[in-house]
Amino acid sequence: MNGTWGSSLGLTIYGESHGSGLGVVINNLPPGIELNLDEIKSEMDRRKPGTSKLATPRSEADAFEILSGLFEGHTTGAPLAILIRNTNQRSKDYSKVKDILRPGHADWTAFEKYKGFQDYRGGGHFSGRLTAGIVFAGAVAQQILSGYGVTIGAKIKSVGKVTCDQFDVETLDGEDIKAWHMDAFSVIDENKKAAMIAEIDNAREAHDSIGGQIYVVAKGLPAGLGQPFFHSMESRIAHIMFSVPAVKGIEFGTGFDLSQMRGSEANDPIVLVDGKIKSETNHNGGILGGITNGMPIEVTVAIKPTPSIGIKQKTINHATGEAMNHSVEGRHDPCILPRAVPVIESVLAIAILDAIMDEGFKTRR
Amino acid sequence: MNGTWGSSLGLTIYGESHGSGLGVVINNLPPGIELNLDEIKSEMDRRKPGTSKLATPRSEADAFEILSGLFEGHTTGAPLAILIRNTNQRSKDYSKVKDILRPGHADWTAFEKYKGFQDYRGGGHFSGRLTAGIVFAGAVAQQILSGYGVTIGAKIKSVGKVTCDQFDVETLDGEDIKAWHMDAFSVIDENKKAAMIAEIDNAREAHDSIGGQIYVVAKGLPAGLGQPFFHSMESRIAHIMFSVPAVKGIEFGTGFDLSQMRGSEANDPIVLVDGKIKSETNHNGGILGGITNGMPIEVTVAIKPTPSIGIKQKTINHATGEAMNHSVEGRHDPCILPRAVPVIESVLAIAILDAIMDEGFKTRR
Amino acid sequence: MNGTWGSSLGLTIYGESHGSGLGVVINNLPPGIELNLDEIKSEMDRRKPGTSKLATPRSEADAFEILSGLFEGHTTGAPLAILIRNTNQRSKDYSKVKDILRPGHADWTAFEKYKGFQDYRGGGHFSGRLTAGIVFAGAVAQQILSGYGVTIGAKIKSVGKVTCDQFDVETLDGEDIKAWHMDAFSVIDENKKAAMIAEIDNAREAHDSIGGQIYVVAKGLPAGLGQPFFHSMESRIAHIMFSVPAVKGIEFGTGFDLSQMRGSEANDPIVLVDGKIKSETNHNGGILGGITNGMPIEVTVAIKPTPSIGIKQKTINHATGEAMNHSVEGRHDPCILPRAVPVIESVLAIAILDAIMDEGFKTRR
Amino acid sequence: MNGTWGSSLGLTIYGESHGSGLGVVINNLPPGIELNLDEIKSEMDRRKPGTSKLATPRSEADAFEILSGLFEGHTTGAPLAILIRNTNQRSKDYSKVKDILRPGHADWTAFEKYKGFQDYRGGGHFSGRLTAGIVFAGAVAQQILSGYGVTIGAKIKSVGKVTCDQFDVETLDGEDIKAWHMDAFSVIDENKKAAMIAEIDNAREAHDSIGGQIYVVAKGLPAGLGQPFFHSMESRIAHIMFSVPAVKGIEFGTGFDLSQMRGSEANDPIVLVDGKIKSETNHNGGILGGITNGMPIEVTVAIKPTPSIGIKQKTINHATGEAMNHSVEGRHDPCILPRAVPVIESVLAIAILDAIMDEGFKTRR
Repeated sequence: MNGTWGSSLGLTIYGESHGSGLGVVINNLPPGIELNLDEIKSEMDRRKPGTSKLATPRSEADAFEILSGLFEGHTTGAPLAILIRNTNQRSKDYSKVKDILRPGHADWTAFEKYKGFQDYRGGGHFSGRLTAGIVFAGAVAQQILSGYGVTIGAKIKSVGKVTCDQFDVETLDGEDIKAWHMDAFSVIDENKKAAMIAEIDNAREAHDSIGGQIYVVAKGLPAGLGQPFFHSMESRIAHIMFSVPAVKGIEFGTGFDLSQMRGSEANDPIVLVDGKIKSETNHNGGILGGITNGMPIEVTVAIKPTPSIGIKQKTINHATGEAMNHSVEGRHDPCILPRAVPVIESVLAIAILDAIMDEGFKTRR
Repeated sequence: MNGTWGSSLGLTIYGESHGSGLGVVINNLPPGIELNLDEIKSEMDRRKPGTSKLATPRSEADAFEILSGLFEGHTTGAPLAILIRNTNQRSKDYSKVKDILRPGHADWTAFEKYKGFQDYRGGGHFSGRLTAGIVFAGAVAQQILSGYGVTIGAKIKSVGKVTCDQFDVETLDGEDIKAWHMDAFSVIDENKKAAMIAEIDNAREAHDSIGGQIYVVAKGLPAGLGQPFFHSMESRIAHIMFSVPAVKGIEFGTGFDLSQMRGSEANDPIVLVDGKIKSETNHNGGILGGITNGMPIEVTVAIKPTPSIGIKQKTINHATGEAMNHSVEGRHDPCILPRAVPVIESVLAIAILDAIMDEGFKTRR
Repeated sequence: MNGTWGSSLGLTIYGESHGSGLGVVINNLPPGIELNLDEIKSEMDRRKPGTSKLATPRSEADAFEILSGLFEGHTTGAPLAILIRNTNQRSKDYSKVKDILRPGHADWTAFEKYKGFQDYRGGGHFSGRLTAGIVFAGAVAQQILSGYGVTIGAKIKSVGKVTCDQFDVETLDGEDIKAWHMDAFSVIDENKKAAMIAEIDNAREAHDSIGGQIYVVAKGLPAGLGQPFFHSMESRIAHIMFSVPAVKGIEFGTGFDLSQMRGSEANDPIVLVDGKIKSETNHNGGILGGITNGMPIEVTVAIKPTPSIGIKQKTINHATGEAMNHSVEGRHDPCILPRAVPVIESVLAIAILDAIMDEGFKTRR
Repeated sequence: MNGTWGSSLGLTIYGESHGSGLGVVINNLPPGIELNLDEIKSEMDRRKPGTSKLATPRSEADAFEILSGLFEGHTTGAPLAILIRNTNQRSKDYSKVKDILRPGHADWTAFEKYKGFQDYRGGGHFSGRLTAGIVFAGAVAQQILSGYGVTIGAKIKSVGKVTCDQFDVETLDGEDIKAWHMDAFSVIDENKKAAMIAEIDNAREAHDSIGGQIYVVAKGLPAGLGQPFFHSMESRIAHIMFSVPAVKGIEFGTGFDLSQMRGSEANDPIVLVDGKIKSETNHNGGILGGITNGMPIEVTVAIKPTPSIGIKQKTINHATGEAMNHSVEGRHDPCILPRAVPVIESVLAIAILDAIMDEGFKTRR
């Protein structure tokens, strides 16, 4: 596995669900950035399991230890490395099912690629638990980005078939968006919230799970980030968004609906407002020709339902070839969306910080 | 601009729409691969403008010259470099409109990033014309992949609101998919073809343009390509897909519709067929945990309508700040989809070849 | 700081001399490699301080904890990550001297680059202590390389002006070279050993330090590793060799002496021995056109004397600009060469493993 | 072959000695840089063969055509790509010797790596002719660097055993160093020039060749470029220096002689001169801890004698295994040093520009 990502930033994650620990090493951060560790902890708590009945009852501390790169409260310029211990694994749960391929999981492809040497306990290095390191990095990125006036926030757009309309972010400012972080179940349309929660409850009661969509926005961006072709902002954001387990689709701005439009409708009209170029609509999601135009970056991602369900499903035992109907035991999220929200914010923050650093980060501060 | 892409492959494009020429340099190809130049030419002809009334009447030869890397019909191991001359530009068309920001185009962001030094003629290095080099590379990749039994083909899934159902590729073999390349307007559902062409005709007559969706599939893949997290197959494919101008959304397998499903529906049941592990459905599009499972990779991309339209649109002159209603003159595609089909096939082929090379390409041949 | 290196391998180091800990994350190792942890520990002990009167009396445990990537004794395919705790720092030694630029040290450039935010204690992330992680990675690399029949060993070639002739490695086999690892002060010419030790003793008694040269060889290599131009084997080896603090020169084969030769002397005559192509001499150090020819890779590196000396030297206080004569207190190596030997072996091993992995490592096993 | 290099810059070379052409694509150059093409041409003429009896009488035009990236005299931000045609090859010279391994050449390793598919004519992609593209890139880099006050120049330090003392560059300014470019045989010590030329003449008359050393310096550098460990300035410079064919050794500052010194001699004393930190000596060659300190970067490289000589040498025919004594016919440089001087300057310029760009190039201008 290549756990390293980034053009200018340089992020390396490591860890396995049931090993000694996991974490992240962030390269190339400039020195002298003051980090608010409490705020980072609070972001990581949003991702943490065990906080609500909508999520898995597993309780993980997710306490991080900084191994290097921070001295007297500021980044030193050395790699910023953290360690999160694994403390609440139940390894005995896994040994008896190691050869059974859970449908929709990576068990099958893990066998194909790692030939049985993968740590099969709890998903090993496929585990969503590795996103804890990503949220740490995302929280750091968001603190740095706030110095540029950039704010990032995400909301649940749909759960199952309960769906909200496209969000209008134009009238909101950074504080409004930042406030979303305080809401453990932030949705685009409050009127749909109860129905969404009912969807999740119904799925849980049926020992099933349910998917959904997350909308994420970055406001206050400088124009000029990104590039045409191979390293377009869409390319970079999509690359890291698809690192998040369970993401199976992504669209920018009006996205798939753009494919149904004519140019006269899709082209965002350009106007000058107080000496600043803007567009009246934002169908292109803040990106034209791969480059930011200063309008909000708006992204929607499709999250598939958690594959771990208590219902019996058709599968095989990899070792014996035996066909079977298997139900996944243990503690699982009936809907991963609430916990995925801070992860999706984090990867967008990381992608944007990386693009800002490409433009010569240091001298801008 | 960073025109280089790839983990193991190493692709570099160069060129501008109205400069001396454009092309691609492909690094890291193994020596001794016999290339069929006629087949490459035929792939490039599919992308070429001027071949149908559905496309721009500009006629570009798109003849390529091989500058290095091929000797006596085989790759040498040196970078495979080509040059395509620009021969049919009308530079005089552009000087008078250089400061007018065409809505939906990269003109705005080009000014933000390149400060007026960009070659403004015909889109400069944002031009879709640079995809000619990508199609060359994609054709090379497809020839190599065919040696692994991998076949790639794309079809139009929708034009405007005329949409086909999800394709069932299970019963088709490589030859069937390869045959799609012979059809200049290959659609998922033949019954929708006439309505799609009518959509395009209507848009053209209205001096407007229309978007759509392209479905692309790779069959015959080995299992085990790709990785969890940062370099998942979805990440890599999405990264290069969003390099293609006008792509604004991507989904794998059932994609966005997965977000509406429960786990019991979304999880593909696993079965053993003739000693080979398969899934009964392919909602995950051939990728689990970022790694191929050997089922077909199925991708759908959303293409926005061509921004160049003859209808007057609200915009500004960047130099003067003057507001205006501007219509884009010149020869333009009312619908880019037919010409985009071979480009989309090409980027998928390149992404897959890159992933195969990561696994130790050379010794497999 | 960008702590990541490698084309196919992917090595990331982190840590600071007086922080919580340091370590390395190794990406892209194939699954299923059995690691001998005792052997790794024994390699790391060779680098450890406090083992001889020739080195610093600081005693560091250098015990490593594996955080991820190893399960039931084999690599899993996940990043192999380790943590080494810092346990024996005396931070109080450093606060009073934080602004004094020690001549020959990185203190000066650390201020220029990190603006005072660097962790100034004990060299921070410039510390030679970070090579502990490199030796871990090098020991892993050597275990893997031994499966290919490749053995790596280094010897001291010179200390100060006490110098040995070029080594003739032709008659030695892998076992012979491996045996060098058992000798804490392995020199090319045993007859020079006493004089070398006297040089070091004299330097220590004078509160001074002394430089020297290390010769390192890799035997049993396959031909065909590396490339012409930008990623020649010389380029790759030199890149990582110059990561080792204090290395100021490198030469391959006969190196600088080649510059004094005529072609008729320098060109290694080519012969066929038992059906295998060989050269009668190895002036080119096993590399022609950037590619290995199967002869031993032979490298010599120049190590400057440790900058920390007890003699008063002219310098300034960075905060006040005050000129002063300053002597560096504390526990220091009068000659770093014995401890540098396993580090130099390690970086050569890493560079060669990386080049082997470029050629499609996995399928070769 | 991977013909791409660089952290921020992104350089890709392509071409073969006897193919259609060769060149370079430079990524990531900022827009708006005015290029003096005459000056670039004049730098490329210095590398060109056929200009003196000390070099090969082959006459190559080395005229370059700009394919993209330059518009109205300024960089556009698109990849800057050039093409140099091959015009004076004599392919017939090569067919009869294609299987004979010329000692000291890459013929042997080319067979090992490229399995006979390499373009064997004139060295193929191993040819020193590919350095023409590097000199183009180096000339561009030097024009940009001059805007930062950085000047680069190289001199011949030794030819065979005729050697000059270490150069004292302290008293020279940028203009002095730039003036070296006008001298086709610039040596450190003018008194040694005649003896050096005699060495070359003697080698040529003996149908032999001779090696030597080149000293290269960069003055006017900002402090703070580079990094500790894996991407030290020494690492980056050495990496690209060893891309130049025939380079077999490199040292920084006092280099190998440092290994004979004590710390008290090697450590450069630090002083404050007019409010600027300097060192009284420059044994470390302007680099401490991998980072520039603002003193001149001083590098010496060892160049082996050209392997192509007219004297019969022991070798084999790769196809038949037949042993033979073979002399290389054709037009060859008895000493490559005069033509290597601009190449060595170029790679140093490229490495420094890359490091400056890492620090956020764009916003500095």
